Amino acid sequence: MIIIMNSEVTDEQIGGVVNKLKDFGLDSNVSRGVERTVIGAIGDETKVDKELMQSLPGVENVIRVMKPYKIVARSYHKQDTVIDINGIKLGGKEIQVIAGPCSVETQDQMDAAAQGVVDAGCRMMRGGAFKPRTSPYSFQGAGVEGLEMFHNAASKHKLPVVTELMDVRSLDAFVEHEVDVIQIGTRNMQNFDLLKEVGRIHKPVILKRGMSATISEWLMAAEYIAAGGNHNIIFCERGVRSFETYYRNVLDVTAIPVLKKETHLPVIVDPSHAGGKAWMVPALSRAAVAAGADGLLVEMHPTPCEAWCDADQALTPEELKSLMGELKGIAQVIGRDI
Amino acid sequence: MIIIMNSEVTDEQIGGVVNKLKDFGLDSNVSRGVERTVIGAIGDETKVDKELMQSLPGVENVIRVMKPYKIVARSYHKQDTVIDINGIKLGGKEIQVIAGPCSVETQDQMDAAAQGVVDAGCRMMRGGAFKPRTSPYSFQGAGVEGLEMFHNAASKHKLPVVTELMDVRSLDAFVEHEVDVIQIGTRNMQNFDLLKEVGRIHKPVILKRGMSATISEWLMAAEYIAAGGNHNIIFCERGVRSFETYYRNVLDVTAIPVLKKETHLPVIVDPSHAGGKAWMVPALSRAAVAAGADGLLVEMHPTPCEAWCDADQALTPEELKSLMGELKGIAQVIGRDI
Amino acid sequence: MIIIMNSEVTDEQIGGVVNKLKDFGLDSNVSRGVERTVIGAIGDETKVDKELMQSLPGVENVIRVMKPYKIVARSYHKQDTVIDINGIKLGGKEIQVIAGPCSVETQDQMDAAAQGVVDAGCRMMRGGAFKPRTSPYSFQGAGVEGLEMFHNAASKHKLPVVTELMDVRSLDAFVEHEVDVIQIGTRNMQNFDLLKEVGRIHKPVILKRGMSATISEWLMAAEYIAAGGNHNIIFCERGVRSFETYYRNVLDVTAIPVLKKETHLPVIVDPSHAGGKAWMVPALSRAAVAAGADGLLVEMHPTPCEAWCDADQALTPEELKSLMGELKGIAQVIGRDI
Amino acid sequence: MIIIMNSEVTDEQIGGVVNKLKDFGLDSNVSRGVERTVIGAIGDETKVDKELMQSLPGVENVIRVMKPYKIVARSYHKQDTVIDINGIKLGGKEIQVIAGPCSVETQDQMDAAAQGVVDAGCRMMRGGAFKPRTSPYSFQGAGVEGLEMFHNAASKHKLPVVTELMDVRSLDAFVEHEVDVIQIGTRNMQNFDLLKEVGRIHKPVILKRGMSATISEWLMAAEYIAAGGNHNIIFCERGVRSFETYYRNVLDVTAIPVLKKETHLPVIVDPSHAGGKAWMVPALSRAAVAAGADGLLVEMHPTPCEAWCDADQALTPEELKSLMGELKGIAQVIGRDI
Repeated sequence: MIIIMNSEVTDEQIGGVVNKLKDFGLDSNVSRGVERTVIGAIGDETKVDKELMQSLPGVENVIRVMKPYKIVARSYHKQDTVIDINGIKLGGKEIQVIAGPCSVETQDQMDAAAQGVVDAGCRMMRGGAFKPRTSPYSFQGAGVEGLEMFHNAASKHKLPVVTELMDVRSLDAFVEHEVDVIQIGTRNMQNFDLLKEVGRIHKPVILKRGMSATISEWLMAAEYIAAGGNHNIIFCERGVRSFETYYRNVLDVTAIPVLKKETHLPVIVDPSHAGGKAWMVPALSRAAVAAGADGLLVEMHPTPCEAWCDADQALTPEELKSLMGELKGIAQVIGRDI
Repeated sequence: MIIIMNSEVTDEQIGGVVNKLKDFGLDSNVSRGVERTVIGAIGDETKVDKELMQSLPGVENVIRVMKPYKIVARSYHKQDTVIDINGIKLGGKEIQVIAGPCSVETQDQMDAAAQGVVDAGCRMMRGGAFKPRTSPYSFQGAGVEGLEMFHNAASKHKLPVVTELMDVRSLDAFVEHEVDVIQIGTRNMQNFDLLKEVGRIHKPVILKRGMSATISEWLMAAEYIAAGGNHNIIFCERGVRSFETYYRNVLDVTAIPVLKKETHLPVIVDPSHAGGKAWMVPALSRAAVAAGADGLLVEMHPTPCEAWCDADQALTPEELKSLMGELKGIAQVIGRDI
Repeated sequence: MIIIMNSEVTDEQIGGVVNKLKDFGLDSNVSRGVERTVIGAIGDETKVDKELMQSLPGVENVIRVMKPYKIVARSYHKQDTVIDINGIKLGGKEIQVIAGPCSVETQDQMDAAAQGVVDAGCRMMRGGAFKPRTSPYSFQGAGVEGLEMFHNAASKHKLPVVTELMDVRSLDAFVEHEVDVIQIGTRNMQNFDLLKEVGRIHKPVILKRGMSATISEWLMAAEYIAAGGNHNIIFCERGVRSFETYYRNVLDVTAIPVLKKETHLPVIVDPSHAGGKAWMVPALSRAAVAAGADGLLVEMHPTPCEAWCDADQALTPEELKSLMGELKGIAQVIGRDI
Repeated sequence: MIIIMNSEVTDEQIGGVVNKLKDFGLDSNVSRGVERTVIGAIGDETKVDKELMQSLPGVENVIRVMKPYKIVARSYHKQDTVIDINGIKLGGKEIQVIAGPCSVETQDQMDAAAQGVVDAGCRMMRGGAFKPRTSPYSFQGAGVEGLEMFHNAASKHKLPVVTELMDVRSLDAFVEHEVDVIQIGTRNMQNFDLLKEVGRIHKPVILKRGMSATISEWLMAAEYIAAGGNHNIIFCERGVRSFETYYRNVLDVTAIPVLKKETHLPVIVDPSHAGGKAWMVPALSRAAVAAGADGLLVEMHPTPCEAWCDADQALTPEELKSLMGELKGIAQVIGRDI
């Protein structure tokens, strides 16, 4: 930690900072420059409260030198973490495309969707039984019954089930209905009590990026899960909020190489929620894979025009299949498989 | 609802849109212009799924004419709603300044803080027992014990207690320890299950704006609470995320007159979390009151330099008192009291 | 300047940084911590190229300790700068409201507007003769003829003329037609050649904040003007771009106290372009004055519904007059006049 | 154009809107719904001033149905426009990578850079002689002398010269020194007088996206150039401003398919300024090509650690060559060449 003092600092104020650092168990290196005095804290800076240091008299700015995340950091585990989901590997050489409808509607719809997933060559399936909707008057998801329909449809093809958890009280139902991968949605990225709960179990967790979360906040949200003991965490970039109104969010492809550098955990991308329109999905999917994503989370519906939710962003089964062909080519160029 | 068709639309596609509207129970008004055909839907557009209409062939754009919010809308209730909190009125002529520390630390700290609140002439007290912290390794709040300390300190002065609820499972403890106003934090603005729960009780709820929530999303989050039967909702603007790094958030004062126009519910402002520095709080507080806010939520700590959380943004009791004097003057200019 | 080395840094890399600093004429203070080595540069850091340091092997991050702005900095000139505009003082105790139409249309319109400005008690007048319009097919302003009409209308009441300069080639016409204050618009905040030109003359310059300019970039843009010798610079906050679509921009009131701390130059606010709707202007104007602005730039049109530009954001002369009354009250509360 | 009236509209107000539309030469279609009256304007809406309509009594909202851009719109010219630059085609099957240093420094540096460009298999060269720098105290570019050095280096290899124009007064020098492609920088995207000037000549123009420009504003800026008669316009996405501090800008890959849909003009990407770090460039370049970009603008310097500008974002000649190999593979997957 580096503490920059203001230009009119007194010796007493410098002493105050040094003493406060001592209280936290750190030594100090005081460097008096021409225009500013800078104090370097020697020791474990995670023990120091940055805001408190900032409130001390004479302090102009406090800068952390260490990254605040530990378990999720690349420095904690140099190798890429590969997560095993019922025998399917995520985070290794093979890129995984997780496809399926926005929401679970009926058994027929889920059966048709599962068939579409398999036909396209995807190995995992997504679908929402509990839906975070902006309006309380919109369809809120099929609930526990939806988990059942999903399980029925997916198990025929041995497709692992990926679905969103919104409420700590639903966790038992998720375990009971054999959900394979728990998704934490954008709006709950900093729902810390929910993160703590999924940190206590060992199912893989897809952690979607918050609407306008920084990379650092996102890594710290994952750290909440990891600190509980569950290291099976998958980051999912889904676009960030911006001033642009043509598309729903701005897909942040730069986050992919940045996360691969900062963390050992897998990174996937949701091109459907990013753009918000089905016709944008192929271009965004190709970009994500080219940029190094370990997988995709893609919306596909057997009959998009009849979908109960986000009808305009789902691919048809045929479009998904055709996309998979393109992605395979790109994967090979960068030394991966799909 | 207005459906704008693309420039190469066919009669069949227009018919498809008209039929789909009929399925939803609405009539149509087809207007063929020089360059575009536009279809107006006649009837209750809230029954229509916008995304589904957008996915129909030939459709270029779909625009809602009606506001999506109902109970919280100004049109639902023309008069300002005044919320009664143990006899103290929020939303009326009198502006309420709710002050207190970021987090509940010790009984002594809370006792001193309560005294400071009263001395400054404020009538309600804030303080966090459950703290949403970016890092899992930071102090997470004193929990239920904190609720007790808070209650002890506040009840001596008959100060209503305002504190944050993060987890549905803590709601019983909040009722038991006589929390007077429940605060829903920024990170939980769209934690819909939590909103539904506070919608089932009748305690006043302060709903903080999400990090980058639009006005419309914020009103819809309140609609979740209102739809459950609890209409005692207070909006709290606390700054939105931006590219600027000099201050934590950009306080959005424009949201104040806009909300006062769109909703009948009270609007307060948190100048402390907006700016993130104690020295910015007076200017932001004055601006908020001048723009028409019904109240403020201000951080004050008996000894800021020793605070366990956000030490650099708390006012001292003396600074709070001095600020109250300025605010009183501004309130009078615009025909209000404090 | 502080250089933070990465965790696997070698002695050779540390030596490389020290040598490069020596090339720039600075000494070094190498501090080897438990987890990181940090190098403090001793001397005038403005001589060092930050990006170059950042590109050296072993460097993780480079942090400037000094502010990059000089002449415009508060540390350069401790007292508030008061700018004299034909005897009217801006930046002192008296708050100045500069009012007038978005664009100069006709002599009659300008005459009526000037009368409205005077009747409301304002002492300076604004109006655009050269208009930066998003579309090349929109009215582009009355040009030099507009400058004449403006001068005719304003000189009758001895109102200083404030108008926007878009092109270096128009500067002679501005001098010839006795423009009193030159406005640099949002889209030209970083049009550095234009800034250099207005730095060569001594007329006061209003520098509007760029659409999404940081405080630091804005101060540096002013530094371009100041470096040329013209220190008569007035900052004008006019809202920043955000995700919100209800209003045009988010008025950033926090920028007011921040600029007053960082610079000795006056700060004014344009509430009209910020909100984009006339009905928002009074609340935003009150907030700006309460937060400490030295003046306002307000759109007023004798007959808004017939304005050729931004018709929906202009106040009527009566609305302006009524607003002035409220602002006077707020000014007094904070020890100022209007 | 669609005019939505507020819920308490009177017949007189509806008549006022209909009459005003008639003034502009348009007919009206009045549709009285259950909750709102909606007026559709029949005719050429580009003749109507939206803000003026919005200011009329009883009007709640005004929505344009037509796109505001004309010449640059895909509907104006259905085929992709291919721009010929000294025999090299941009916008066709072949993807063009334009490489070179941030700034022109010395003849030796430019000669080495030109050799690097050719060795990597690129066919066009970039380099700045006039540099828009945030600080007035930073190196401002080698100026006209720089244009000469650039021309000397590039002409040996018949590489077309791409360089930035900042000031209308430099245009003659650009023509004289045979600049082949004029670049308009981010900060000048809405410098409308500069756009008008480059609209009068016929050299190809690269129009970089403004810091936080919407797609629509960007297209309208291009329309300024096109309206002058110069249709040789190339859009260049270079990242938009966001809250994230880890990288300089967020590269907006979604803009690529969106622009390809909205305009017939070529779209290229600058991955160097987007990320701001050399190590991010390969991933971003691959993503851009995979998403459908027609070209790239990449910073390469013979010795990055000695660059006078943006040293930390330039590739070495070897890195560029290796990147070209990867891009070739991706181009082939999507049916293009490089």
